[in-house]
Amino acid sequence: MTVPIIGGTGALGFGLALRLAAAGEEIVIGSRDLARAQEAAERLRAELPSARVSAAVNEEAAQRGPVVLLCVPFRAQSENLTRLKPVLQPGQILVDATVPLAAAFSGKATRLLGVPQGSAAEQAAEMTPEGVDVVSGFHTVSADRLRNLAERLDEDVLLASDRREARARVAALVERIEGLRPVDCGPLEMARMIEGLTPLLISINKRYRTHAGVRITGLPDDGAGYWRR
Amino acid sequence: MTVPIIGGTGALGFGLALRLAAAGEEIVIGSRDLARAQEAAERLRAELPSARVSAAVNEEAAQRGPVVLLCVPFRAQSENLTRLKPVLQPGQILVDATVPLAAAFSGKATRLLGVPQGSAAEQAAEMTPEGVDVVSGFHTVSADRLRNLAERLDEDVLLASDRREARARVAALVERIEGLRPVDCGPLEMARMIEGLTPLLISINKRYRTHAGVRITGLPDDGAGYWRR
Repeated sequence: MTVPIIGGTGALGFGLALRLAAAGEEIVIGSRDLARAQEAAERLRAELPSARVSAAVNEEAAQRGPVVLLCVPFRAQSENLTRLKPVLQPGQILVDATVPLAAAFSGKATRLLGVPQGSAAEQAAEMTPEGVDVVSGFHTVSADRLRNLAERLDEDVLLASDRREARARVAALVERIEGLRPVDCGPLEMARMIEGLTPLLISINKRYRTHAGVRITGLPDDGAGYWRR
Repeated sequence: MTVPIIGGTGALGFGLALRLAAAGEEIVIGSRDLARAQEAAERLRAELPSARVSAAVNEEAAQRGPVVLLCVPFRAQSENLTRLKPVLQPGQILVDATVPLAAAFSGKATRLLGVPQGSAAEQAAEMTPEGVDVVSGFHTVSADRLRNLAERLDEDVLLASDRREARARVAALVERIEGLRPVDCGPLEMARMIEGLTPLLISINKRYRTHAGVRITGLPDDGAGYWRR
């Protein structure tokens, strides 16, 4: 299964590309600009010679796999969704990792913007074609930690979507990355709380000079059996 | 140091009273109704004969210690703050644990209300006298887990306040409870994201049939030295 990463040249997209490639997944790095996508794919291969990675413009990349990761800044989210709309097909899943930080409009990265739909993920859901499930995820994973393969991960990825099956499919992808555990947060409207975790972690990072993440405590069986039920 | 708990007859307030009493702190359980406060104090003593616990109406309780815990439902927060205003003194700290759940108005417990001030904690700050610092905290700790002394805790309490010294004083109180770690989230405006964690955890609880909590990963030294800097 190939994993298209829209905005794969950015920090989070590239970090996820690297970790998924290290897990043996085939990756397509998408960018508005083919040359930039190719440059990022080469950078990834240089770091991980075993990587199966190609490059494409976003609209092409999005057609190459069933689960499409959207890793673009909030400022560019709407524009990207408009371009993806004609190419996304029913049955595909769009994983939205967008965080509506006030930094999008030269505000603080510790402040969340109010999105009319409730969250960036709900905006994505409004702008994707019928039959494409949107899953909110990957907001709390530090791009810097992903980027450094030597760094051991030990944290959760909080997932929200209106279809459990879509959440489960993305959970399986999350589990491919060692040290990441998918946690089911329920319907897509929970995305507004998940997106709020990013500015909270940014505020913690400033104080502790670190790249913090989140772990949910108290899951039965440490959450191990949940997705197999 | 005596710890007044406003709304100490409720689930969260009583749970915190029990744990703090078990740590050797002297507690005053506050309620609108003295008889209910006394009943809760007796219940606490029955469970923990060593407890140093007394009962008072909220306005009296609030005068008995420097750090006052406010553990009331959102629906009653504003009314409680109005009654506390004349008795709180400069130099006191008010710890606000209020979560503006839609359940306050027969909506879902997985939905957060929009509070005009940005968060319940910022509403508290607006309604407390000059010189009283408001600290947001204790939103992610399950009342059920607190209530059961046999239950080992292993989670974080996220703290926000506009004065670091106030955060540090509440952090010291959090550390009295075994298994709870205080994490510095910065200024009070971060409270809106912290308050959003409660509905998120409630949604997770429904799915995993548990009482989940939160742990921040990646803190240097596991956060041990932070408050002693």
